[in-house]
Amino acid sequence: MGKYIFLIVCFGILWLSFSCGQPQNVLASHPENGLDDPLPSWKEGKAKEAVLDFVRNTTDSSHTDFVKPPDRIACFDNDGTLWSEQPIYFQLAFALDEIKRKAPQHPEWKTQQPFQAVLEDDHSSLMASGEKGLANLMSESHSGMTAAEYDASVKAWLVTATHPVTGKKYNEMVFQPMLELLEFLRSNGYKTFIVSGGGIDFMRAWVEEAYDIPPYQVVGSMGGYEYRFSEGEASLQKLPEMVFNDDKAAKPIGIHRAIGKIPVFAAGNSDGDFEMLQYTTTASGPRFGMLIHHTDSIREFGYDRKGHIGVLNKGLDSAAFYNWQVVDMAKDWKQIFPNGDFP
Amino acid sequence: MGKYIFLIVCFGILWLSFSCGQPQNVLASHPENGLDDPLPSWKEGKAKEAVLDFVRNTTDSSHTDFVKPPDRIACFDNDGTLWSEQPIYFQLAFALDEIKRKAPQHPEWKTQQPFQAVLEDDHSSLMASGEKGLANLMSESHSGMTAAEYDASVKAWLVTATHPVTGKKYNEMVFQPMLELLEFLRSNGYKTFIVSGGGIDFMRAWVEEAYDIPPYQVVGSMGGYEYRFSEGEASLQKLPEMVFNDDKAAKPIGIHRAIGKIPVFAAGNSDGDFEMLQYTTTASGPRFGMLIHHTDSIREFGYDRKGHIGVLNKGLDSAAFYNWQVVDMAKDWKQIFPNGDFP
Repeated sequence: MGKYIFLIVCFGILWLSFSCGQPQNVLASHPENGLDDPLPSWKEGKAKEAVLDFVRNTTDSSHTDFVKPPDRIACFDNDGTLWSEQPIYFQLAFALDEIKRKAPQHPEWKTQQPFQAVLEDDHSSLMASGEKGLANLMSESHSGMTAAEYDASVKAWLVTATHPVTGKKYNEMVFQPMLELLEFLRSNGYKTFIVSGGGIDFMRAWVEEAYDIPPYQVVGSMGGYEYRFSEGEASLQKLPEMVFNDDKAAKPIGIHRAIGKIPVFAAGNSDGDFEMLQYTTTASGPRFGMLIHHTDSIREFGYDRKGHIGVLNKGLDSAAFYNWQVVDMAKDWKQIFPNGDFP
Repeated sequence: MGKYIFLIVCFGILWLSFSCGQPQNVLASHPENGLDDPLPSWKEGKAKEAVLDFVRNTTDSSHTDFVKPPDRIACFDNDGTLWSEQPIYFQLAFALDEIKRKAPQHPEWKTQQPFQAVLEDDHSSLMASGEKGLANLMSESHSGMTAAEYDASVKAWLVTATHPVTGKKYNEMVFQPMLELLEFLRSNGYKTFIVSGGGIDFMRAWVEEAYDIPPYQVVGSMGGYEYRFSEGEASLQKLPEMVFNDDKAAKPIGIHRAIGKIPVFAAGNSDGDFEMLQYTTTASGPRFGMLIHHTDSIREFGYDRKGHIGVLNKGLDSAAFYNWQVVDMAKDWKQIFPNGDFP
């Protein structure tokens, strides 16, 4: 539930940050490395070389770092690692839009906080509603419906909603270099999993199309469900309580529960991923830890040690000790977004 | 926790059943259907034909029942569906043996129930210890160690422990016809999952080898975990509390949590699988529900409507209504166990 506190502060960031960190209209760089480069959006350098070496070695049966195919498990955080997460987690943007969409059926929300604040874009009242208020918003937008209905609502939102800074659709704000990395790993026998603090049903509505990752390879935070069977139809009702918050020290637990093997490769971008990387890279045998460092305030958002989303402090301090590869988005990536770095 | 009540009564069955239902020493039938029969241990008949037809149709892109490969999800219960479950769940047999193995480090158990009862094979005292006593036994054998240590203990147990009736090793008591069915489905683009009330860590210790099902395709009951990092080593400590009991109406929930798609094919054998089959087969599109009916008291164990493990009552009553295929083990299977039907 600590996540909610994070999220509350994010509201402040949402409105404050519209004036800073706005990407410039830079034309997308195009790959210049020829057809045989599996990572064309990655600039030549230590990060790219380290990834290529690791995958080459772990798939070479004559190498001491060879990893048998069944053990080739790669885990990726989602928010800030596979797609953007600023100025607020995109799932929270969905929640706010859902409240607005449902408002006509809830006239009482006009005078009831925190709903009134959402409807009036009144961020100070929204922040004043505190953790309980935000929990209400999340609950209202993420429960009280079937899993199938929720899935449809996320899919519908993604069709029309646009990001307040880039103007892109949210699922266009995935990272092109990470798409290439996912595909490169898969083409070398790795199974790619998402291990995110985001809601599992929220992600599953779009990640199969976006990342080619099937729903059974998505690990995330979860609410409760109730099985119902009525008039010949089965359904899973989404309940308001949170039963698993897949963040920080819970990430290794989420990995064990859902995957049952220690990953060989793990990538994250914030201190919420610290334990996942630690769990991965301190295990015996060859392991790779990657931290995406948001250094690019021109093409994406620049942030790390400060702020209220995606703070990367402990990770930066410990990267050398654990031999984690820090990826500098500004320096290591030719291109950020698949359809060009600005609309 | 209702499962514990089941298990307690099973102790009675354990000792009572040694005198009945003992398999005869029948030589294994060998496939006579030629190399191109994907289900050689299945006798010709309605059950086999229904499976062959379903898989043929759902993988034929010109057929109205065609299912796209990403949606080809098949879920199998484990106890009584993929391997035997009599006279007690094999996981409970493990728990009892673990108590005996650990006894030298616990001299106090000699006079402390329910441990004393286990050590003395005193089933009346064991049953008298009730649900709480059994919970103690399960907890003592399934927590207070790391996930890796637990995994090693299950693997070690399987090497030496033998079934009280057949004398086989427990993991030799998987069902040959179901191994063929799993492989047949996989060779037709289906992903095969286990969805069992059994403990997820217990199953993962051996199912990859037994069924060719990787740990991330195993859904089961789960206890809690605590992530620890000490002296450079990460571990997951297994906690005594149960956090998910993957049985009955929780099976569709377990499927949704872990898989995120409604299965196309589901197989079970007891009323604990009722909701899984209902959830599967009432969804739109082509679906297949299978119930393994334990009719073979010669080669395996004969049971259905009565008893305290694997009761199949509601399922038999509803099979025709839901169009579930009941597999009669005595009539539909040429052979039960892979290494022959008796040691």
